[in-house]
Amino acid sequence: MKENKYNDQLFFDKYSKMARSEKGLEGAGEWHEFKKILPDFKEKQVLDLGCGYGWHCLYAVRQGAAHVLGTDISDKMLNVAKTKNADEKIEYRCIAMEDLDFPDASFDIVLSSLAFHYVEDFNTLMKRISSWLKKGGYLVFSVEHPVFTAYGSQDWYYDKEGNILHFPVDNYYYEGQRKAIFLDEEVIKYHRTLTTYINALLENGFTIKHLVEPEPPQEMMDIPSMKDEMRRPMMLLISAQKS
Amino acid sequence: MKENKYNDQLFFDKYSKMARSEKGLEGAGEWHEFKKILPDFKEKQVLDLGCGYGWHCLYAVRQGAAHVLGTDISDKMLNVAKTKNADEKIEYRCIAMEDLDFPDASFDIVLSSLAFHYVEDFNTLMKRISSWLKKGGYLVFSVEHPVFTAYGSQDWYYDKEGNILHFPVDNYYYEGQRKAIFLDEEVIKYHRTLTTYINALLENGFTIKHLVEPEPPQEMMDIPSMKDEMRRPMMLLISAQKS
Repeated sequence: MKENKYNDQLFFDKYSKMARSEKGLEGAGEWHEFKKILPDFKEKQVLDLGCGYGWHCLYAVRQGAAHVLGTDISDKMLNVAKTKNADEKIEYRCIAMEDLDFPDASFDIVLSSLAFHYVEDFNTLMKRISSWLKKGGYLVFSVEHPVFTAYGSQDWYYDKEGNILHFPVDNYYYEGQRKAIFLDEEVIKYHRTLTTYINALLENGFTIKHLVEPEPPQEMMDIPSMKDEMRRPMMLLISAQKS
Repeated sequence: MKENKYNDQLFFDKYSKMARSEKGLEGAGEWHEFKKILPDFKEKQVLDLGCGYGWHCLYAVRQGAAHVLGTDISDKMLNVAKTKNADEKIEYRCIAMEDLDFPDASFDIVLSSLAFHYVEDFNTLMKRISSWLKKGGYLVFSVEHPVFTAYGSQDWYYDKEGNILHFPVDNYYYEGQRKAIFLDEEVIKYHRTLTTYINALLENGFTIKHLVEPEPPQEMMDIPSMKDEMRRPMMLLISAQKS
């Protein structure tokens, strides 16, 4: 099932008020780690899957990319991208990433920020991305951590007074759909084990170059709730090279 | 701190009654996955770190290894190894793995089963193992999963009636010592993030070949509590090649 939650006006409006929406990359808690594992963009052909507002597309262009194709299932998100992050070297296309098709070796770099957990069939996607990449090309993505997606609700476990006790993990090996609460809205996401993420890469000709579970950045520690993010891993960042 | 818990008579006696102690490899829930990621042992020089009863040492010899050095901090464990799993091609040595030293390129394969979570400084150990391995050699190990070690107690979270609610994760990014309860005894283990495990390998010249969070084997599903192991990842198996 390909849900287009970001086209839901209420969800879209709430998302637009997040720090990562208003401030762009610098407002994203994982950006300080994600940018460290990005490859050299100079003269590169880049594909950004689930590009949203297009922040990473513009970043790639500013780092010297020859051309960036940003794709997203939500035209509402792309309309913002075309306003906020337009550039003559960026093309935005409204399409679900599962429906994309390209000739072999079309890209040097494939990016994806926090979008793969909306995709049901990860292995097929990796197989296809591997074919779209040139030999030696890079896939760099962030995804919600399996610890974060396993239980489903993505919420802490609290005591009666509402204090956080810990983060619950359950049903870890039962992969598939979860109904998560994000911005007080129900959003469909897909839980996968770490094993599935890594093996889909290894089996499709990738070498793992970096794997990072980003800690909250020191300068955001004064944001309420950010310190709690030291207690659980929420995201997984991976850089892999097609060998 | 190098704890020698397996030399504690009470703990040693309890451990000796576990299925993995009585039945050997076939009694270990992760063996069906671990053996799949082992390299070819023929004519190889093998080192087994924290070899315990020596089951993996004997397996390596039976698979054709030229010589196996099995090391363990506990002489009690090694006394059993010398009785149960002796072979002219196996040498057992009583020493903490942190105190070992070998010339560069001494081994083709380094193994370790469920012992690295007793080691405080993982990065230094990986650096040293990398130097002991020949180019192209393999390090294959199992370790308790970061999800399993994070909270500390390694127990489920229960309701008032004693039913399992979920598995708790907390203090994930705070690495270091944990006092776990294992066989009703307090045992010191070290929690590390997945990031630390993977980066220590990548930064010391290893390529990740396999990463598996083993599910309980189908034929053990009738053992009480084994089905619950579908709810949390307890172990992490990694095969890495020195490049």
